[in-house]
Amino acid sequence: MRLLFVGDVVGRPGRNMLEAQLPKLKKKYKPQVTIVNGENAASGKGITEKIYKSILGFGAQVVTLGNHTWARSEIFTFINEETNLIRPLNYPPGAPGRGQTSINVNGLELVVINAMGRVFLEAIDCPFQALDKAVEDAKKRTPFVFVDFHAETTSEKQAIGWFLDGRASAVIGTHTHVQTADERILPGGTAFLSDVGMTGPYDGIIGVDKDVILKKFQTALPAKFEVAKGRSQLNAVFMEFDEKTGKARKIERILINDDHPFDE
Amino acid sequence: MRLLFVGDVVGRPGRNMLEAQLPKLKKKYKPQVTIVNGENAASGKGITEKIYKSILGFGAQVVTLGNHTWARSEIFTFINEETNLIRPLNYPPGAPGRGQTSINVNGLELVVINAMGRVFLEAIDCPFQALDKAVEDAKKRTPFVFVDFHAETTSEKQAIGWFLDGRASAVIGTHTHVQTADERILPGGTAFLSDVGMTGPYDGIIGVDKDVILKKFQTALPAKFEVAKGRSQLNAVFMEFDEKTGKARKIERILINDDHPFDE
Amino acid sequence: MRLLFVGDVVGRPGRNMLEAQLPKLKKKYKPQVTIVNGENAASGKGITEKIYKSILGFGAQVVTLGNHTWARSEIFTFINEETNLIRPLNYPPGAPGRGQTSINVNGLELVVINAMGRVFLEAIDCPFQALDKAVEDAKKRTPFVFVDFHAETTSEKQAIGWFLDGRASAVIGTHTHVQTADERILPGGTAFLSDVGMTGPYDGIIGVDKDVILKKFQTALPAKFEVAKGRSQLNAVFMEFDEKTGKARKIERILINDDHPFDE
Amino acid sequence: MRLLFVGDVVGRPGRNMLEAQLPKLKKKYKPQVTIVNGENAASGKGITEKIYKSILGFGAQVVTLGNHTWARSEIFTFINEETNLIRPLNYPPGAPGRGQTSINVNGLELVVINAMGRVFLEAIDCPFQALDKAVEDAKKRTPFVFVDFHAETTSEKQAIGWFLDGRASAVIGTHTHVQTADERILPGGTAFLSDVGMTGPYDGIIGVDKDVILKKFQTALPAKFEVAKGRSQLNAVFMEFDEKTGKARKIERILINDDHPFDE
Ligand SMILES: [Fe+2]
Ligand SMILES: [Fe+2]
Ligand SMILES: [Fe+2]
Ligand SMILES: [Fe+2]
Ligand SMILES: [Fe+2]
Ligand SMILES: [Fe+2]
Ligand SMILES: [Fe+2]
Ligand SMILES: [Fe+2]
Repeated sequence: MRLLFVGDVVGRPGRNMLEAQLPKLKKKYKPQVTIVNGENAASGKGITEKIYKSILGFGAQVVTLGNHTWARSEIFTFINEETNLIRPLNYPPGAPGRGQTSINVNGLELVVINAMGRVFLEAIDCPFQALDKAVEDAKKRTPFVFVDFHAETTSEKQAIGWFLDGRASAVIGTHTHVQTADERILPGGTAFLSDVGMTGPYDGIIGVDKDVILKKFQTALPAKFEVAKGRSQLNAVFMEFDEKTGKARKIERILINDDHPFDE
Repeated sequence: MRLLFVGDVVGRPGRNMLEAQLPKLKKKYKPQVTIVNGENAASGKGITEKIYKSILGFGAQVVTLGNHTWARSEIFTFINEETNLIRPLNYPPGAPGRGQTSINVNGLELVVINAMGRVFLEAIDCPFQALDKAVEDAKKRTPFVFVDFHAETTSEKQAIGWFLDGRASAVIGTHTHVQTADERILPGGTAFLSDVGMTGPYDGIIGVDKDVILKKFQTALPAKFEVAKGRSQLNAVFMEFDEKTGKARKIERILINDDHPFDE
Repeated sequence: MRLLFVGDVVGRPGRNMLEAQLPKLKKKYKPQVTIVNGENAASGKGITEKIYKSILGFGAQVVTLGNHTWARSEIFTFINEETNLIRPLNYPPGAPGRGQTSINVNGLELVVINAMGRVFLEAIDCPFQALDKAVEDAKKRTPFVFVDFHAETTSEKQAIGWFLDGRASAVIGTHTHVQTADERILPGGTAFLSDVGMTGPYDGIIGVDKDVILKKFQTALPAKFEVAKGRSQLNAVFMEFDEKTGKARKIERILINDDHPFDE
Repeated sequence: MRLLFVGDVVGRPGRNMLEAQLPKLKKKYKPQVTIVNGENAASGKGITEKIYKSILGFGAQVVTLGNHTWARSEIFTFINEETNLIRPLNYPPGAPGRGQTSINVNGLELVVINAMGRVFLEAIDCPFQALDKAVEDAKKRTPFVFVDFHAETTSEKQAIGWFLDGRASAVIGTHTHVQTADERILPGGTAFLSDVGMTGPYDGIIGVDKDVILKKFQTALPAKFEVAKGRSQLNAVFMEFDEKTGKARKIERILINDDHPFDE
């Protein structure tokens, strides 16, 4: 199974980049399934129904979220209806939407799970307990389990990677908006990358206008975040899972920006 | 000017890796100056005089530190004597040691500065104020300024990068122990990398035994951190600065581990 | 039912104060049950078996804990054996010890529960979910439920108070080591106090030597915490619950220090 | 010198309570100067020019602020003009407004300083360094120095109290919205109270509608904070300073609510 996962799409620059580059990526990598993190797709925070559907239209099958899931109040009007829009599954019981989805990839079932860390983030339910249960349940039906683990620290991300090694086909981190260079296949067969990075502005600070952030750090005055203007980038990761065992055979980072033009 | 910077050396595995790989790196890259972050060099936290000197013996000229600077009480007995062992310069007035050093690199002055972020770290003095002053002072004497910015978040690191763009020759992040893939030369000529990564265990969680960390995350019980056993890695970055302007001409990430053997 | 609850006993000064004042308090208030928070009883952090038993010897029936529960490794050797030594019940499954106990108070069952907040504290299981279940279970057997809610912020403490109003006989906060002045009986009949305060040094900083803490705040250098010397204080709260309904009829704060001598 | 300080006025309920109770308090305590913390005066967050002036109209001479200083963008249009509206002085250089003011109290100069802690709050400049300088400067002119220290933790508040003991006439904490019961005169002569508490709703959670906060804690979903409805309270503290030395002679907590009616 060939899977492409695209990191946090930030605002219009991210959506434009996704639309422009996804066809080329599909041509090169021939993914059978494409997953996109969309927690920043609407003006940098949250997602709308229209934008969600446009991302599907660009060629994704599943959209994952993160700590910005609820940033747009519109989310409450459609998240329950959309099977393939998933938010962290360890939100407390009663949260709208779902934390995982199951899709058919050329006749094979792929379970896609979104979970969120708690270090320096909100105190929600334990991601280890939640993922343990969700992955064990999924494994009863299929060896193909993909996890987008949205977290701040490298320690919590690597911990989830080792925790699920041999159980999930892949654990890929999101949230920091900077791609890490530590892609590997863990000894048990799980593809791992601490953070896939971000798809959006190339000359901002994690996607936000840099002057706004610089002023905020220096003055502690409130700042109105604005998606940065100018050049764009795309960050993604491509994986191959063994058709029989679900174990990862390949993981390849993808960076597209002015310093790393797309290598067709 | 050719500069090699090696990411946080963790315990004996890190020191052994440094000793074994530095000669090969020097042969390949021919750096004129080698800087090593040593905040985790002694059993994973802090540094001792003996270990500091062994790192110089392996071929480094300057050792930088971070939030673990004071982890070993022995530090207070020798940090004031060692000109080329530097700790974050934005510790409050009165802190032992120094936050920068100036060394002669083939007849050119290189100022090396260590600073630390405050997001999710201790509330020390403002790194923007401190770096602004230190870099401006240094620039009166030399165009060659190297900054090791020790911080948790990608936003604070990118902010310092843009803040010093065109003023420092390079801003390289440390602390997360995972190398990021965002090396670039910013428009003003400053080489930037959010995190250079870590030199030490390859199969731990940011260098620590993974079972200890996994148990800690799952139980919230206290854990005695131990440097992980097994295979090792080295993370570093190589840069070239223009001899006249001090601006960066090249930045290249270096990863050495079983999945990325050294390419001589 | 008359209940006396004594705030975090800190080190030897706290234990001495407890031993000296408890007889006077018992004479004045005639509590039928005395509960003591002992998370700082051993040198300011954690508790030992000997100290736990000495607190029972001074006249307590139940000892509650908090974020310092595991500070002394000795705790793991005896917490499972001691029915009336309780730690926060929302530690993750598998934690040693228990989060509640049930005792006989003149023929009536009193359930004592210890829980811990998560704001600015460790990310453990949700206190609202855990307390909801524990209190509902207890209410099937008895109307007398006492909760020591160990937390940092006034918002989380007041939230638990309102959450359990009409269900618990009392919700009393601990952890900040400073008694608050907001004792009241909530409309549903639950006695509430944001923090009962601390029993130990009167001239330290929340019990710790003030010079150590002042230096730490000013330098960010590591500090070896030592229980402050000099004068002592006792902080407690006395409550009466209706014998039929379990609802609170009275709540009275108790402060004993040089500025507020014991009023016999 | 007789000084009355009223804790964080929250929204309309707080303003109404201030207007209704201040005349009675003035009649009873005869303060020569009245200071009010107004950081939550406008709908629970921030302050407007109109509201600031109404607080002066109710009988205050100085209004202090805190972490909500900049919550209303209107603040930037008038804070520079208002000498007696002060915000934390340890905001970084360049912040609008001022951190202290000097007023004439029956022919004596009183310096009023607002400062803010950093534990669990924003990383601004060091309050110890800033207060040390400001208090030393003030002491050159007058022995009367009042400090509103806006902070989250009891440890940082007590630390500032001891740090300024013998130098300030009083250090009174704000921010937690719950009055503490630890009022005292420290050995050097500084009146101290960890937190004066809040003036506003009596049946909310630190002033906010309790259902909103309860839902937020249980679901981690976003919540629109609303000032709670229903009964109100006033929290304040009255002090007397020696006319010659500026040292505190008296400190008395004031609580007015349905459980503690005003004792005229
Ligand atoms: Fe994101
Ligand atoms: Fe995120
Ligand atoms: Fe490190
Ligand atoms: Fe570090
Ligand atoms: Fe405590
Ligand atoms: Fe505690
Ligand atoms: Fe406030
Ligand atoms: Fe505040």
